[in-house]
This record gives sequence, structure tokens and C-alpha cells, in this order.
Amino acid sequence: MNGMETPREIRRKIAGAAWTKPTTGLAPAYAQANLVILDRRYAFDFLLFCVRNAKPCPVLEVLEPGATEPRETAPGADIRTDVPLYRIWKDGQLEQEVSDIAAWFNGDMVSFLLGCSFTFEAALLGAGVPVRNIEEGKNVSMYTTNRKCAPAGPFSAPLVVTMRPIPNDLVMRAIRITSRYSLAHGAPIQVGDPKTLGIRDLDHPDFGDPVTVKDGEIPVFWACGVTSSLAVLSAKPELCITHAPGHMFITDVLNETLATL
Amino acid sequence: MNGMETPREIRRKIAGAAWTKPTTGLAPAYAQANLVILDRRYAFDFLLFCVRNAKPCPVLEVLEPGATEPRETAPGADIRTDVPLYRIWKDGQLEQEVSDIAAWFNGDMVSFLLGCSFTFEAALLGAGVPVRNIEEGKNVSMYTTNRKCAPAGPFSAPLVVTMRPIPNDLVMRAIRITSRYSLAHGAPIQVGDPKTLGIRDLDHPDFGDPVTVKDGEIPVFWACGVTSSLAVLSAKPELCITHAPGHMFITDVLNETLATL
Repeated sequence: MNGMETPREIRRKIAGAAWTKPTTGLAPAYAQANLVILDRRYAFDFLLFCVRNAKPCPVLEVLEPGATEPRETAPGADIRTDVPLYRIWKDGQLEQEVSDIAAWFNGDMVSFLLGCSFTFEAALLGAGVPVRNIEEGKNVSMYTTNRKCAPAGPFSAPLVVTMRPIPNDLVMRAIRITSRYSLAHGAPIQVGDPKTLGIRDLDHPDFGDPVTVKDGEIPVFWACGVTSSLAVLSAKPELCITHAPGHMFITDVLNETLATL
Repeated sequence: MNGMETPREIRRKIAGAAWTKPTTGLAPAYAQANLVILDRRYAFDFLLFCVRNAKPCPVLEVLEPGATEPRETAPGADIRTDVPLYRIWKDGQLEQEVSDIAAWFNGDMVSFLLGCSFTFEAALLGAGVPVRNIEEGKNVSMYTTNRKCAPAGPFSAPLVVTMRPIPNDLVMRAIRITSRYSLAHGAPIQVGDPKTLGIRDLDHPDFGDPVTVKDGEIPVFWACGVTSSLAVLSAKPELCITHAPGHMFITDVLNETLATL
């Protein structure tokens, strides 16, 4: 990729297996999305889980049962091929990772696209707020907290958060900027006190990589889309398909249009 | 009512039939809600309709099938008695208006509470922006527009809007203030040009009352919760229960907590 491709061009390369890596940094002006695909029997309860927990699970688009084209956020795309790496889950257990889900998809499956923190990371960088995980070329640090999401039917999960260390004098700016993106996790959940979230050691995240916290920096915590994965696993559906971490679905939606003000 | 009652006290009077009138102006600091009750077979598609059309249909709370207590927005309340006047719809036709729905409610019914423009009207008044329908003691003017909502399953509807005439020099303030309340219809849909919405005559609203538009005032249009009623009627469910217009469910949620920034 040369950094100039449109989302449509990138999706075409992904569908043709010319791109199989994580999507971080691709088409940075456009929103990327978490993907969850479930049988229609779970659709109401999972949508309700997302509505009740909109900070970790902001709904960008829900496709009709059996539909494969996200007509709202990526017209012409195919949800079965346009993610670089998928995960196939059976009864809540990871079974395999694949680059095409045509063999698993059927007419009863409902696809959910949920907002992703890449949107607000681009906004932070654009406003001069450093993003340590990008600087260090690492996956963002993620932690399971002591807060419980509001359950819905068989779906329940603790709130998972990401942490980014922010220089003291930029914390308020980081809060104000990310608050605008209510469809990409919005305002932080907590600032400066990991213990109130039940996080004992920032150096040992539950998912992703640890990053450096420098002197004069405050750990800032945002709701994380991995929450939706834990919710799905809790319900142990016979079959569930998600993206593999970091291998997101790239939409045609400009990040700025996800800003609420 | 003396204007000092809490939402809980008002709901108790309503449940005891000591209050059967519209709820405009009651507990003005608290959010009031539109109510739609449907069989669980319709729940996913209707929730999806609301998610896809969040401006006219902002979801405050969805109760589990058969649940009668809005635990999130009004703990202790009873959805079957705490609205002053309900409407019973059969096959999409209004059958009757009642003050208690216990005889119709059953264990398969799912209750949806949707945000209401009373929230932002209170904010407008608090910021010195006049609200003509309140000044004139009328129901707000509502119009069916030429815009179609995104359908979901059997639910479809044109976008219905409310109109409030705003003095020219206060239009920007009105936009900025209402934009904050994304769970109460948010920013206007259109400012100053009824024709682009297919509205030919402001003096003949499709619902509600006409109000005076003075010299130097601009008609400003916001998405309206009546949209959800039209969507429900379009699906012609065997049974549907809603509030009667203006007879809202009063929550314990402060309006200000519905502000997104």
C-alpha cells in the first residue's frame, strides 16, 4: 500500500489476498470497524447488548440476515472477503483463522459492524496528542476491568478498556477530542487511576502489548471493542465469526462524520 | 402538580389515575420518553429500525421480553401503569385509548423507551431561546417529509419532523444547544427551507397544531418521535401499545445526562 489507496481499493486487495496483515494505518481518514457475525436467533439480544453498552460497542451498521454488502458504510463491499483475517468460533471456542468466510456464511447470519478506536487515534495525532502504541509499533494495551457491562439475554461481559499514556498537559485535550467520537468509544472511561478499574499492573495488560509510560504522563482509559468479543464468547453460540484482532473492516465512512458535534 | 414533585411521585399519581393529562412541563429537569411495546418477534427489526434512524428514534432503554420495570431509566416504575394514556393498536389500526395496559401486556412483550424533544425544549428555554408551541400552549407542529427512513424488516416510515420558529439571531444558538442532546433528536434536520423537506404549507401541519411564525424568524426542523409510530403502523403488528401523543413516560434521567459533550 502506498497510503493513497481508497478504502474500496484496499478492500479489493484484501479480498484478493494481496493484503493479509493488520489494517492499522491504512486509509487513515476512514473509519475501521470491528466485525461480529451471529445467527439471527442471537441478533436481538446482541444488538440490545450493543445498545446498552454503546461506549465499548458503538453500532456503525447492522446487515439484514444473510446480507453480505454493508450498503450504508461500504457500498459494493463483501463482508465475507473484505477483512484480511477472520476468526471462526464454535461454542465460544476459537476454532481457526481464515481469510475468507464463504464456507461458513449462510442466509441466517447477521453481521454487526462496530466502531473502532483507530478513529479517535487519528484525531489525537491530528491534534498533536502522541499515541504511544503507534509510536512504539505495538498493539494497544488492553485490560479487563472490574466493571460489568449491562447484560442482554445470554450476552454478558466485563468492560474491557484500552490505555494510552498521555502527557499531563495534553490530558484535557485528549478527553475533549475523543469525546466527539461517540461512535468510536467516545470520552475516556477513567483518567489516572487504574486501581478504581481493578487494574493492578499496567505492565501486564490482559490483551495487546505493554507500552512505555513516561514521567509526567497519565494513563487514560477508553472503552474497547474487545468487550464485544468477550460478550459473544459468554453466550457460546454454535457458530460466530469475527475479525482477527487488528485486522479490521475498512469502511467508506470518514472519521469526521462519526463526530457528534 | 405543584412543579416540585419528583418523577417517582408523578408516576405514582399517574398510576393511581390522579393525573390523566399530557405530561408537558412535569418534572422539567427529567427526560420524558416515547413508549412502544411490541411482541418479541418484532423486537430485533424494530430495534434495528431505531439504531438505523437514531435521530427520530433515539433508544433510551429496551426492556427484556415480559419485563415491566425500566431498571435503567426509572427503577421501581411499572411500564403498564405509569403512562397517563396509552393507545392500543391492532393490525396497525388504533383500537382504543386506555389508562392501564395490564389486560394487554404479556410475557412476550418488549418495551422500548425512546427520547423525546421535551428534553431539548427545556434546554432551549434555559438558554433564552423561545419555544413557540410552549408560549402558545399548543402541541408542536409536525410534518411528514419527503425523506425516507432506512427500513428494517417490516418497519418503514417517512421521516417526521417538528418545526419551531426561531428568531434569526438565535438560530445558531438553537442548533448548538440541541446538537448536544443526541438521545433527544439532536441537531436539527434542516433550517429555513421547508420545501427541501417536501413541506408545502407550514400552516397545515400533518400532526399537532400550527404555531405563529413571526417576521424575522426562521423555521427550524428537528427529527420527531412520531416517526417511530408510523414505522410501527407500517408493520401492522397484531398488537402494539404506545403512549398517546403528549402523554409520555417520565424517567428518572436528568436531561443533562443525555447531553453528549
